[in-house]
Amino acid sequence: MPKTLVGVMGPGETASPRACDHAYELGQAIARHSWVLVTGGRDAGVMDAALRGARAAGGLTVGILPSNDLTGASSAVDIPIVTGLGQARNNINVLSSQLIFACGMGAGTASEVCLALKARRHVVLIEPTDESLAFFTALDPTRTHAARDSADAIRVAERLIGQVEQN
Amino acid sequence: MPKTLVGVMGPGETASPRACDHAYELGQAIARHSWVLVTGGRDAGVMDAALRGARAAGGLTVGILPSNDLTGASSAVDIPIVTGLGQARNNINVLSSQLIFACGMGAGTASEVCLALKARRHVVLIEPTDESLAFFTALDPTRTHAARDSADAIRVAERLIGQVEQN
Amino acid sequence: MPKTLVGVMGPGETASPRACDHAYELGQAIARHSWVLVTGGRDAGVMDAALRGARAAGGLTVGILPSNDLTGASSAVDIPIVTGLGQARNNINVLSSQLIFACGMGAGTASEVCLALKARRHVVLIEPTDESLAFFTALDPTRTHAARDSADAIRVAERLIGQVEQN
Amino acid sequence: MPKTLVGVMGPGETASPRACDHAYELGQAIARHSWVLVTGGRDAGVMDAALRGARAAGGLTVGILPSNDLTGASSAVDIPIVTGLGQARNNINVLSSQLIFACGMGAGTASEVCLALKARRHVVLIEPTDESLAFFTALDPTRTHAARDSADAIRVAERLIGQVEQN
Repeated sequence: MPKTLVGVMGPGETASPRACDHAYELGQAIARHSWVLVTGGRDAGVMDAALRGARAAGGLTVGILPSNDLTGASSAVDIPIVTGLGQARNNINVLSSQLIFACGMGAGTASEVCLALKARRHVVLIEPTDESLAFFTALDPTRTHAARDSADAIRVAERLIGQVEQN
Repeated sequence: MPKTLVGVMGPGETASPRACDHAYELGQAIARHSWVLVTGGRDAGVMDAALRGARAAGGLTVGILPSNDLTGASSAVDIPIVTGLGQARNNINVLSSQLIFACGMGAGTASEVCLALKARRHVVLIEPTDESLAFFTALDPTRTHAARDSADAIRVAERLIGQVEQN
Repeated sequence: MPKTLVGVMGPGETASPRACDHAYELGQAIARHSWVLVTGGRDAGVMDAALRGARAAGGLTVGILPSNDLTGASSAVDIPIVTGLGQARNNINVLSSQLIFACGMGAGTASEVCLALKARRHVVLIEPTDESLAFFTALDPTRTHAARDSADAIRVAERLIGQVEQN
Repeated sequence: MPKTLVGVMGPGETASPRACDHAYELGQAIARHSWVLVTGGRDAGVMDAALRGARAAGGLTVGILPSNDLTGASSAVDIPIVTGLGQARNNINVLSSQLIFACGMGAGTASEVCLALKARRHVVLIEPTDESLAFFTALDPTRTHAARDSADAIRVAERLIGQVEQN
């Protein structure tokens, strides 16, 4: 059986401190569930925060990098996947994850949420804006979930990943 | 000088007749401007309608296919680019286009709009829902444009592509 | 019916003058057959020479670029496909071509020949070295062809593309 | 510090029993060095043999899959990276590996060796044919290495990865 991979997506340089706090807590919780954390791998914002959280809690971390080499990778990535694909790697992030969390929003993060829904993955949005929640719910009401904080988001994920494993 | 490539994005099998009508008219108008039409190339929905419109008006058409071969390609594609990349090809659609039009909405189309904004391309949404317009405007107010029909959309594009060419 | 796309692959900066001469002649001949030329699109070596040959003979040219934008593209590309994929775009070059010609050899070109054989495309090597011919023939004797010059290569291609079209 | 990723490449369904034996032994040795094994991830030939060898020796295994889901993945993959890219994923295999071993040869494997040399990775060929060794040595004599068996290959890798780590 492969390990259970779970993604945390969110902005890089433009991430808010609050989104990074959520991402750090999600990384910790993912590690405690013995899930493997998947992020876009860069040394910035939500990606780096989630990776550091998982690392601090003893978890295993995968970074799927857009670049041709390790330049710009977070120091908390255990397994760097060097794609050289730029933003086309966003589809690999979501295909490799059983479920994704989104902390904060931006054009790149939004593309990952859309690609996740296209690939029939569940998405848990942490503290989404009204516009985000309305938009993604219109795209796929059954796979779009909102959570008020990281603890709430993890409870949603436990239920959904449990479902997946039972099927 | 390379030709000016312009994209028309929208749902495949789930496209509404109205979105397909807009796409057909955009394809015709793109051809009349001597722009080259770029779509996702499949024989379905908005892609096929735009390609048939451009073909009918004597234009040149590019289809950037997700598949490994020509199976499922629209018969109105002149230049089939066979990517074998699945949805990762969405990023190529938008990087290759100077500007994109979106007719209708779905998870795949939304991913292309997001990737276009990420790549600093202008996006013209035809008859967007309130949720779509609010969401994309929040992502990038300067590059998100709404149009009430295909003629209005083309006027917006003429202005923007003119700007690009002048810069 | 889509147009017939034919690829010319070969080194960029390290291409020999002789390989570039062959590529220029192949570009001309491809245009005269009303085939569409596909190359990696860069402003260097075999790619640029083939594109200029096709352009001089009034042909239509496609450049499948590794970069995120038009920087470094040959000025003889009509249809720039901007992939942002780096060398992963090599697989798109060959999947989009009904047949490929290889002028000169290097690691990138060799990867394209291998990917072409993997995708069951015929490959015509112009003036191959003994090592190249022996290696590719061992990989796939039925799809590896050698030609002594561009005229000979075109005769091989006429026969093979005819076969493909008859099937 | 990220872990050290090392690739084992080779044919799938067409692999010889001898190539699979070498791959199994390489997988074991990679695990004993605490390196992470990277393969193309499929449940066939060299990929599967290497993964099973690493698993048997308690190692961590990454499979970079060409498919859109886990169908066809080896049961010995710990971390499945689902790319949906077909053969374009070959470039990710080599960019993610500090060094690659090649057991057996075929068009797909050869593309990976070429892409590895293009990306300036060292390649260790196990029991190469004369044609293979001559061809790859002509492409890049400093990064092409031959080994007579898996133990010899590992000694070459220890020296090369040591070099990399010291730099």
